[in-house]
Amino acid sequence: MNAITIDDVREAARRLKGHIHRTPVITSRSFDKASGHRVFFKCENLQRAGAFKIRGALNKLLSLTDEERRRGVVGFSSGNHAQGVALAAKLTGASAIILMPTDAPASKLAATRGYGAEVVFYDRQTEDREARAKDLVAKTGRILVPPYDDPAIMAGQGTAALELLEEVPDLDALLTPMGGGGLMAGCSTVATALRPTVKIYGVEADTANDTYLSFRKGERVSIAPPPTIADGIRNLSPGVLTFPINKQNVTDVLLVSDKEIEEAVRFLLLRAKILVEPTGAVPAAALLAGKLPMPKSSRVGVVLSGGNIDPALLADILSRS
Amino acid sequence: MNAITIDDVREAARRLKGHIHRTPVITSRSFDKASGHRVFFKCENLQRAGAFKIRGALNKLLSLTDEERRRGVVGFSSGNHAQGVALAAKLTGASAIILMPTDAPASKLAATRGYGAEVVFYDRQTEDREARAKDLVAKTGRILVPPYDDPAIMAGQGTAALELLEEVPDLDALLTPMGGGGLMAGCSTVATALRPTVKIYGVEADTANDTYLSFRKGERVSIAPPPTIADGIRNLSPGVLTFPINKQNVTDVLLVSDKEIEEAVRFLLLRAKILVEPTGAVPAAALLAGKLPMPKSSRVGVVLSGGNIDPALLADILSRS
Repeated sequence: MNAITIDDVREAARRLKGHIHRTPVITSRSFDKASGHRVFFKCENLQRAGAFKIRGALNKLLSLTDEERRRGVVGFSSGNHAQGVALAAKLTGASAIILMPTDAPASKLAATRGYGAEVVFYDRQTEDREARAKDLVAKTGRILVPPYDDPAIMAGQGTAALELLEEVPDLDALLTPMGGGGLMAGCSTVATALRPTVKIYGVEADTANDTYLSFRKGERVSIAPPPTIADGIRNLSPGVLTFPINKQNVTDVLLVSDKEIEEAVRFLLLRAKILVEPTGAVPAAALLAGKLPMPKSSRVGVVLSGGNIDPALLADILSRS
Repeated sequence: MNAITIDDVREAARRLKGHIHRTPVITSRSFDKASGHRVFFKCENLQRAGAFKIRGALNKLLSLTDEERRRGVVGFSSGNHAQGVALAAKLTGASAIILMPTDAPASKLAATRGYGAEVVFYDRQTEDREARAKDLVAKTGRILVPPYDDPAIMAGQGTAALELLEEVPDLDALLTPMGGGGLMAGCSTVATALRPTVKIYGVEADTANDTYLSFRKGERVSIAPPPTIADGIRNLSPGVLTFPINKQNVTDVLLVSDKEIEEAVRFLLLRAKILVEPTGAVPAAALLAGKLPMPKSSRVGVVLSGGNIDPALLADILSRS
């Protein structure tokens, strides 16, 4: 029995309506030509706060009782989830504390604070952020908003696939980046319910292959901290709740190199004219590298998960072209 | 009596339908907050060949007789018009010769040839490209597809505003970049017909202020070759056909600096996540710099005219942030 169903995602969609963007689905002739498929990009890089994360975070906040919301929330993330929780808290009038590593990029720190959240730092080398977060929760009575292992988070992320399939119902395949697995758990729940014939692929950086290895072993595997440029999928193991859902729904996991990821960032930027961060470009990288094991001209839905990237890193990626 | 009417633009829209993208109109909360207005971006950077130019070029090609199309066409441009004519010729089965300067960027040269056009070079310092083009036309019997001074070109470009006003009818203002004036002639013809109360502003780089000066003098003024980064509006004077139309329709011309243009490119890229070339970002620069002389929270339509930019230049612009 899975932790979420399509009905949970539909309820999340009703809750989120009007608070977040219904992001556009775009196509690119040059990308189709280069990949050999007919690709539909769900542009979560154009979502509020620049990533899909607001979907899950706001669904979680809106699922709390008034009393719980008054206690405030705690989130931990060096990336898009931090901004998602901060914005969700602002939109619902809750106070938020976000645990961020001392070396978090200044732009993400500023954005998180810009939404009114209080930032508390932890040392990435010496401290366990999850333990710190749980300690904060215990001491303050606040509610934890985890990045993926939570039914409300997974259901919220699934609304991205719900919108995509409403617009393009006849997909042959659906690809998302595979990090902790929350985006995929929600999206794969939707896709298997609405389009039972669809093939579903998660894509990981080849050094961040925890779900790939876990699929092969049939159980959750942990890896050492991976060095990939795709900083949104550097988790060390699949989630406790997300893994069984993804194991059941997902056809397979594909792997791409950092070089392929950078090439996809450049292609999407210079040819399709949209800014996608390395993590968000991971599934596009698999398509451009010819790694999707499906017939040519398949109709492929791709979640471009986010667009938040440090300008200096983007300049670097452009100079390497 | 103007060279074009709203009916010419409507006919162009019928001709173009299905051959080019109906580009999305997007909004950005962060841009609205920064500019103080409610801004609707018509994303011609997502148009085929990366700019609005295909609208005019294809309308021109589709307006020719079969016999004329068989004779082939000639275009001259170092920029987006070259690719627009090349793609329009390809789509209509016509042969195209494009005159390009010897120092044209390799990427634009490759793109133009990629659409099957033959490229003929001229020396920007010593040769008059318009005279070269007319000479080619006289010798070969081909049809000239000028960049702006042509009723079919102007009517084609106007379809961008037609689509924008169909989607957002209640605009208080419309802004486009002001180069030779073809985009503005078409768009202002549409806007004055459909929304008589709308204020219409062309925006130029402050060193490429030929239309600004011409408006003040009441007649076409020529300037020295301007150094602006906005390479699509480096023309030396307004067009013969476009100027009287724009003089009649356009409220005024606004001026922005190259620094303000670069800031707008960065803002649109890093905050709104879309790639707009410097020329395309010129009206957004005016808004961010607070130069629109209208009440706060006005509803402003902006044509983002193109997204073709050299990766090295983009990396430079990012490093300057």
